[in-house]
Amino acid sequence: MAQLRAFESARIAGRDVPEIVCFEKQEDWGGQWNYSWRTGQDGNGESVHSSMYRNLWSNGPKEALEFAEYTFDEHFGRPISSYPPRAVLWDYISGRLENSDVKKQVRFSTAVRWVEYNEPTETFSVTVEDLVTHTTETSEFDHVIVGSGHFSFPNVPDFAGIETFPGSLKHAHDFRGAEALADRDVLLIGASYSAEDIGVQAYKMGARSVTLSYRTQPMGFDWPEGIDEVPLIHHFDGSTAHFSDGTSRDFDAVVLCTGYLHHYPFLPSDLALASPNNVYPDALYRGVVSEANSKLYYLGAQDQWFTFNMFDAQAWYVRDLILGDAVLPAPELQRRHINAWLTRFGELNGAADEIQFQADYIRDLIDLTDYPMFDLDEVVRIFLEWKHDKQENILGYRDEVYASVMTGTMAVVHHTPWLAELDDSLERYLSDPQPDDIAGLVAETDAVTRA
Amino acid sequence: MAQLRAFESARIAGRDVPEIVCFEKQEDWGGQWNYSWRTGQDGNGESVHSSMYRNLWSNGPKEALEFAEYTFDEHFGRPISSYPPRAVLWDYISGRLENSDVKKQVRFSTAVRWVEYNEPTETFSVTVEDLVTHTTETSEFDHVIVGSGHFSFPNVPDFAGIETFPGSLKHAHDFRGAEALADRDVLLIGASYSAEDIGVQAYKMGARSVTLSYRTQPMGFDWPEGIDEVPLIHHFDGSTAHFSDGTSRDFDAVVLCTGYLHHYPFLPSDLALASPNNVYPDALYRGVVSEANSKLYYLGAQDQWFTFNMFDAQAWYVRDLILGDAVLPAPELQRRHINAWLTRFGELNGAADEIQFQADYIRDLIDLTDYPMFDLDEVVRIFLEWKHDKQENILGYRDEVYASVMTGTMAVVHHTPWLAELDDSLERYLSDPQPDDIAGLVAETDAVTRA
Repeated sequence: MAQLRAFESARIAGRDVPEIVCFEKQEDWGGQWNYSWRTGQDGNGESVHSSMYRNLWSNGPKEALEFAEYTFDEHFGRPISSYPPRAVLWDYISGRLENSDVKKQVRFSTAVRWVEYNEPTETFSVTVEDLVTHTTETSEFDHVIVGSGHFSFPNVPDFAGIETFPGSLKHAHDFRGAEALADRDVLLIGASYSAEDIGVQAYKMGARSVTLSYRTQPMGFDWPEGIDEVPLIHHFDGSTAHFSDGTSRDFDAVVLCTGYLHHYPFLPSDLALASPNNVYPDALYRGVVSEANSKLYYLGAQDQWFTFNMFDAQAWYVRDLILGDAVLPAPELQRRHINAWLTRFGELNGAADEIQFQADYIRDLIDLTDYPMFDLDEVVRIFLEWKHDKQENILGYRDEVYASVMTGTMAVVHHTPWLAELDDSLERYLSDPQPDDIAGLVAETDAVTRA
Repeated sequence: MAQLRAFESARIAGRDVPEIVCFEKQEDWGGQWNYSWRTGQDGNGESVHSSMYRNLWSNGPKEALEFAEYTFDEHFGRPISSYPPRAVLWDYISGRLENSDVKKQVRFSTAVRWVEYNEPTETFSVTVEDLVTHTTETSEFDHVIVGSGHFSFPNVPDFAGIETFPGSLKHAHDFRGAEALADRDVLLIGASYSAEDIGVQAYKMGARSVTLSYRTQPMGFDWPEGIDEVPLIHHFDGSTAHFSDGTSRDFDAVVLCTGYLHHYPFLPSDLALASPNNVYPDALYRGVVSEANSKLYYLGAQDQWFTFNMFDAQAWYVRDLILGDAVLPAPELQRRHINAWLTRFGELNGAADEIQFQADYIRDLIDLTDYPMFDLDEVVRIFLEWKHDKQENILGYRDEVYASVMTGTMAVVHHTPWLAELDDSLERYLSDPQPDDIAGLVAETDAVTRA
């Protein structure tokens, strides 16, 4: 969506823009933000893309992800809170494109089956299947931009004895809501964002206990009674998990919060990015241009502190390369540039360093394009405040508010505290409920979480 | 596995056999019978193949699926019961190939990415990815045999309101065991084998209630107290399912037993078989040779009453075509032959007709090869007895025994009734437990199912 917007922006500015075709296997756009109740395979037999679940609210402040050229103020026409739920964020990213014709460039329900590069013609043959008509076709393209992300194919390690765990068992990718975890003893394996958020979701929905199992170190939040952290699983024996410290517990449900794979089954291995999930995957010049083929680009391949506005910066730069407004240096200079960033990447020490690193990376990209520069240092400051707020109150940080870096508008405290809000719809979010109703929800939440 | 055996059989008989490469994305062979605890995507990001679950025992008598040239007697060296659990059947089909070198022909953990037919050379270019080394390679083949089956990609219809059903929700493809359904109200949508067997599994494991929702007609078994059938879902509202007859019930768990898709994402649409699941898919000469390309074959593409021995008959015939021992008629004669079978298929009326039809189909194939002919009418008789036994006692039919069509050996009544047996391992199956232990299991089962 960022790439479509980038080209549209150039077209509006009077530039000649090449023909663009966007292949999307889902029925609508929005990627991760396009919630589906389905898990595993979708209605067409394709792997479900989105890892989204009911009651997912942004886990970072919207002020850190806001587009520099389409603000929340412009979209909603009034201040909103800093941590909107999924449907609100989908509305924002979709809304940016609704006043243009770019949706016509998208072939929905169309899966990319195979991409091949043809040396003689310097083009890519892209073979796709229309999942509705079941027709395969191959077209030639000068450039290929991979925007399929890397949080759709679960990383699923094996654990001794897990094959006979009798309870509910799934990867976070297939988690769609915590309602069924009420009154259950829940084990979450992992110590990153999936474990953190599914953990507090389970707590919010009344899980009897939430146990978080870490490999290297605990998240260390000030967890409420009912959530705690233990080291890595040694093995399962029936419904009992045995941990590496010799302790054991019985569980009704296990969610594997073990991350995702870079997986591009439509690309030959010499073109497919192979990387762990980190903020500077090797072999991408300026984080986007494939070293294996300079007409192949990846958007959002990094581990992400920044998201929407980083994708924009990347898309604007890729657009400029394709339009000829930016020029790639020779391969050895690209390599030198990558190495310089990799050296700095190797010296990072912790989250604050990573956030500053990614801000600098984005600044470097925006400097090359006409994307509006914004106060990246202020976004870094917001990220650090967010991290501090999480340390202070992992159940309450989503009730905090920040000022927009783009417009200065101060976010408003939402009508209902996150912990008490069980309706994640756009309608509810934008509604103006009665104070008594809100007080009732808060009282019910207190009853559930103290039970 | 049938195709590997077919060629091996010719090689042992002194024939020259072409080079064979079998690509298998799983780590081991056995297809559906290769149980995995994983759901959705596997450890390599590929769609999980097997729909198998814990405590799955054959739902048809082994005497109906026995290989004509490798009997249960030969494999186990003693009589066993007629409805063995999964691990026992895997042992049987794997055991048939263990005394040969054919496993070396299989490239495990290797996914077929794309197949293309080259008119000038009359060969197929097959592009695969080794999922361990992450290397893509393309090789040329004269013939392609599709043995990936059609019970791996779930057919998942949409239902109004299902996106907010708060309980456990999955397709039968992702069902791995009914233990977690104890004390739950369970809805199974569908009226075929998945619904029937997951229904009795849930009952066996102590579900509070099992509701089976049918689209056209109920299965009509003599269900025990606690299992019953209702018509199709109209919509969901939270945890409540509303049915087309105006009734409604609340559920803790839903399993979509809505069948599977013919889905061949590695094939261009002009080569991919497109068919509903039936006993005579159109466009396959003798049920195996693609009309679109006479060097492309499908094994087991039919809906299946017969299984293992039908796959053998198909594999032997495909082998003979490739070896030149059998000759394809001209396309118009193939079409006439297909039409004749389709005409007869169109006149079938019910299961007994279908079973006889499939027996005749297999006889037709075996007549063309050196596969040992067996008494197909006797197998039909066993199928009809099996159907009668199911009508008599849907919870007890797996305790019945039949005589082998191949050897005449009478199966033995298993040491533990199916309903009381909670350990589905090969070791347990082949063990000789004490009568007191078995009586204890039976008593516990009575307590659970009467609770």
